[in-house]
Amino acid sequence: MNYEASRLLLGLNCAHPLDAVSLPGATTDLAKAHNFDVQAFRFNADKEHMRQPRIVRVGLIQNSIAIPTTCHFADQKKSIMEKVKPIIDAAGASGVNILCLQEAWTMPFAFCTREKRWCEFAEPVDGESTQFLQELAQKYNMVIVSPILERDINHGETIWNTVVVIGNNGNIIGIHRKNHIPRVGDFNESTYYMEGNTGHPVFETAYGKIAVNICYGRHHPLNWLAFGLNGAEIVFNPSATVGELSEPMWPIEARNAAIANSYFVGSINRVGTEVFPNPFTSGDGKPQHADFGHFYGSSHFSAPDASCTPSLSRYRDGLMISDMDLNLCRQIKDKWAFRMTARYDMYANLLSEYLKPDFKPQIIADPLINKRA
Amino acid sequence: MNYEASRLLLGLNCAHPLDAVSLPGATTDLAKAHNFDVQAFRFNADKEHMRQPRIVRVGLIQNSIAIPTTCHFADQKKSIMEKVKPIIDAAGASGVNILCLQEAWTMPFAFCTREKRWCEFAEPVDGESTQFLQELAQKYNMVIVSPILERDINHGETIWNTVVVIGNNGNIIGIHRKNHIPRVGDFNESTYYMEGNTGHPVFETAYGKIAVNICYGRHHPLNWLAFGLNGAEIVFNPSATVGELSEPMWPIEARNAAIANSYFVGSINRVGTEVFPNPFTSGDGKPQHADFGHFYGSSHFSAPDASCTPSLSRYRDGLMISDMDLNLCRQIKDKWAFRMTARYDMYANLLSEYLKPDFKPQIIADPLINKRA
Repeated sequence: MNYEASRLLLGLNCAHPLDAVSLPGATTDLAKAHNFDVQAFRFNADKEHMRQPRIVRVGLIQNSIAIPTTCHFADQKKSIMEKVKPIIDAAGASGVNILCLQEAWTMPFAFCTREKRWCEFAEPVDGESTQFLQELAQKYNMVIVSPILERDINHGETIWNTVVVIGNNGNIIGIHRKNHIPRVGDFNESTYYMEGNTGHPVFETAYGKIAVNICYGRHHPLNWLAFGLNGAEIVFNPSATVGELSEPMWPIEARNAAIANSYFVGSINRVGTEVFPNPFTSGDGKPQHADFGHFYGSSHFSAPDASCTPSLSRYRDGLMISDMDLNLCRQIKDKWAFRMTARYDMYANLLSEYLKPDFKPQIIADPLINKRA
Repeated sequence: MNYEASRLLLGLNCAHPLDAVSLPGATTDLAKAHNFDVQAFRFNADKEHMRQPRIVRVGLIQNSIAIPTTCHFADQKKSIMEKVKPIIDAAGASGVNILCLQEAWTMPFAFCTREKRWCEFAEPVDGESTQFLQELAQKYNMVIVSPILERDINHGETIWNTVVVIGNNGNIIGIHRKNHIPRVGDFNESTYYMEGNTGHPVFETAYGKIAVNICYGRHHPLNWLAFGLNGAEIVFNPSATVGELSEPMWPIEARNAAIANSYFVGSINRVGTEVFPNPFTSGDGKPQHADFGHFYGSSHFSAPDASCTPSLSRYRDGLMISDMDLNLCRQIKDKWAFRMTARYDMYANLLSEYLKPDFKPQIIADPLINKRA
């Protein structure tokens, strides 16, 4: 990659260049044996007088599904769990402190089909996949963020798109539900579940304050902002998104969020092409087809100083690891003062006005607009 | 540039690839004679049944100052106007409809010095530089956006960082004052002028609805959002920013704003190194020096579909031209529905709460946080 491309793609003229990190043999052996990509980097920060460095090791997992979508649902789910297990083990062997899986990781991303039978993959917060991860969280002393399709037993069996945050002692710290639901392309998620009702929680874990902006929420700067206002130091963006639709946006939005909010972002996208049993149309006038397009992986980290890691493969399962000194968040806040210069009062007022049906935009029209043009 | 770099840098797998545009000989002759970079591109949109295409030609000018900062202020200003004139002529010869100049274009960016004598460059809204541009706007039937240092005669000779929007008939349509003032590096602007009091106006011109996010405001997603809520189709970001500080952010923030708000963005940065008469320190413990660093140019356009043009030179004066079908803005709104899925009510409430001194962030703490780690 030439200088110009490195500069723009990785922010490599920033104050704290990235270092590569070497991982233990146990990790690289697992990666070879199970054929997944593994990369590791370190974001640096300045030394401070009044605080020790707060270096945490954070991991992201991206993966394809394991067996065809025509198989029995229980087998599909089990096979994904079996496939992801060695990648989690690799994270554990690497001493990862906080690990995040991809959106709806226990299932194919079947919402393109509009078939409601896929709701069978939904689980209660303390269901099978959570129990599976609780054991691993405790074993590896690791916080695990688990995005699932949730069945809310206490509210009429409502379906949600949810993350379960599991503490490093294997306990469930809490949940967050996806705030913004797409209505674009084959992302027919709005026929399965509604906008989340959990606000913008930040989870204070043993290793730092984390939050989760699920998938389509990354297109909403206010969603990113809200996690920042609540004090997040790392925000994960577990996603499932396809090449033709969102790929030009992918390297931009997460980095912008990290810059604008002075926190780290971990972006995850699933991998591969998932083919479904029954063909469907895409609202584009083209013939029916049975796949959702290519999930392009490319998981990566972004830092508040505008730097970022390279991305994992577009095609293979992968584990991305980064060491990050969380002190960098406050250092960047002190340097750039985005919070202090933000004038939130103006925007609280504007949004309140905008919500009114008779909102009048602030437009200054040229009185001579029709004179000539 | 290889495929991976093109894809990420220019969003080239988007639905509407960029075309190069050829310019008249008069333009290229002026560029050769006056040694400035000129580039031209076209953003495309889908054809619609119910609307004709609304193609406008938009220009951005970046330039260095013309003579040393030790010269008489009147000569410095005059020489910049003389230097910029042939670039404006080149825009006029190219049929540009809307043209934007760089931040505080009539002067060196002397705010690093903290010397108040540079306030002499401030002008009333209808001052010398505005009159100069009004003539050219009328001559070329061109809207001109002119960022100046403003002297507000009617309010105690207050200084503002202001843009004057001049209609294609040479009339002053209105002004906007910079909303967010930096407190970082040598950007000592907060000692010269205060946060603007003009809200987020959108100017309805003969060629479309435009707005101006001045310089440091590009770090504030809410500032970009507000221009979008008021209906902007093109937002200019006239800037003056230096390599060591902001360059890794430069290719990210404008593109993110274009994506998040479904409008076009024109980003402008001045060029060159400006050396001042009296050395100053930079609050970094290093010895005094007389320059502000390198203004890295790199002006470019971003589109709502996540594509963008290449950038003008990092070193030379330049004119960047793009044809853009403004219909693309609504097409992207209809496709992605970011406005409709934004849940502004949540954020109006959150910001109102956040403004209170006793705001409590939404934090869910792990009760076992101190058990082991």
